Amino acid sequence: MTSTFKVIAFDADDTLFINEPYFDEAEEKFCALMSNYLSKQSLSQALFQTQITNLPLYGYGIKGYVLSMVQTAYEVSNHTVSTKVMEKIIGIGKELMAKPVVLLEGIEDTLQQLHGKYKLVVATKGDLKDQHRKLHLSGLGAYFHHIEVMVEKEELDYEKLLKRLEIEPENFLMIGNSLKSDVLPVLNIGGTAVHVPFHTTWAHERIDHEIVHENFYTAENVKEIVGLLKL
Amino acid sequence: MTSTFKVIAFDADDTLFINEPYFDEAEEKFCALMSNYLSKQSLSQALFQTQITNLPLYGYGIKGYVLSMVQTAYEVSNHTVSTKVMEKIIGIGKELMAKPVVLLEGIEDTLQQLHGKYKLVVATKGDLKDQHRKLHLSGLGAYFHHIEVMVEKEELDYEKLLKRLEIEPENFLMIGNSLKSDVLPVLNIGGTAVHVPFHTTWAHERIDHEIVHENFYTAENVKEIVGLLKL
Repeated sequence: MTSTFKVIAFDADDTLFINEPYFDEAEEKFCALMSNYLSKQSLSQALFQTQITNLPLYGYGIKGYVLSMVQTAYEVSNHTVSTKVMEKIIGIGKELMAKPVVLLEGIEDTLQQLHGKYKLVVATKGDLKDQHRKLHLSGLGAYFHHIEVMVEKEELDYEKLLKRLEIEPENFLMIGNSLKSDVLPVLNIGGTAVHVPFHTTWAHERIDHEIVHENFYTAENVKEIVGLLKL
Repeated sequence: MTSTFKVIAFDADDTLFINEPYFDEAEEKFCALMSNYLSKQSLSQALFQTQITNLPLYGYGIKGYVLSMVQTAYEVSNHTVSTKVMEKIIGIGKELMAKPVVLLEGIEDTLQQLHGKYKLVVATKGDLKDQHRKLHLSGLGAYFHHIEVMVEKEELDYEKLLKRLEIEPENFLMIGNSLKSDVLPVLNIGGTAVHVPFHTTWAHERIDHEIVHENFYTAENVKEIVGLLKL
């Protein structure tokens, strides 16, 4: 890997710490609450559809997810669901916002080794408040220059990010678990990306083709980053 | 006003464009929906209490506001409210997120005159997605280096902002309509602030004492900024 990098950006959810399993757990609870109305599979599909439809309005993160659960509940029940269920849905959301922050293996060691050699930033989608909470609780805050909570992670968003960081694409390395959000747009604007897969990925973040690109790397574990950078 | 400023930050809501009147309108609709249960005044108080209680969890912005309306609805009705009302509450939120962006008088002229002479940023609380939407629709995006959506606007948050902008407090001028969020913390960390009052202020943003400080200015209209800076 060439080392013209000035900034190394880390995705947060399922790159620094566990996230998707908490959403899966929340969805299980939602489906259990609503099991009188539809099968688990149909409820999951209905919730996913509502989320995707609301995405342009709500953006990413827990609060939009909870609002979509509320909407799915009255829609699939044709307004017969009780407000006790609404209360439980609000409760599922509040629980999600109070989940412990569990670091992924190797993260802290890796950040320790990179710290001082590069400007490290967190570049993530999701809920502004919740991402700041998680970074704070993670104890990793001191390794990072700052956190960027992005509205989207598309090419234009990365271009804005680089402009704001006052660097060129060749100075930028992105590390994350989503090929769609952390890898493809970064490669497309001339940056470099390392994919560190996580065992579960939200359907919206999946892509169905392979990536072959000279600036694309894969690592089984984030610990391999230091070796890739030949530190 | 001394001019050691490098960055001029503008609050967004009710400084660049109208916001609070839209929330007041939403609250009126909520109170009308729930008028079977409590008086308008009691409903407003209950909603405000729920918002404040949820603030550490939800943060600022529309989505947290809607979640607090849902919660207030089932709480004040002792779970007797219908899910049709829940649907209408979700609708009030979606309407809020689609409101037109109405610039305050003098903003664009002022930005035109400051642009190129200072790094201009937007420094605002609120919902990440919605603030980006509004800035985009405002047509003011090109005047600003970037937008900072802050989790809070307290001293520590401004200190982080300055660190991130790589400037000292004497290089920082903040302009906004909230004495609590745009003025006091900025003065306390050694920056300069101009208060441009808006005709209505959310209860949570009000303070009950006068401010006397050598770095504190007041303007009836944002157009006076140019004069204060002696451009």
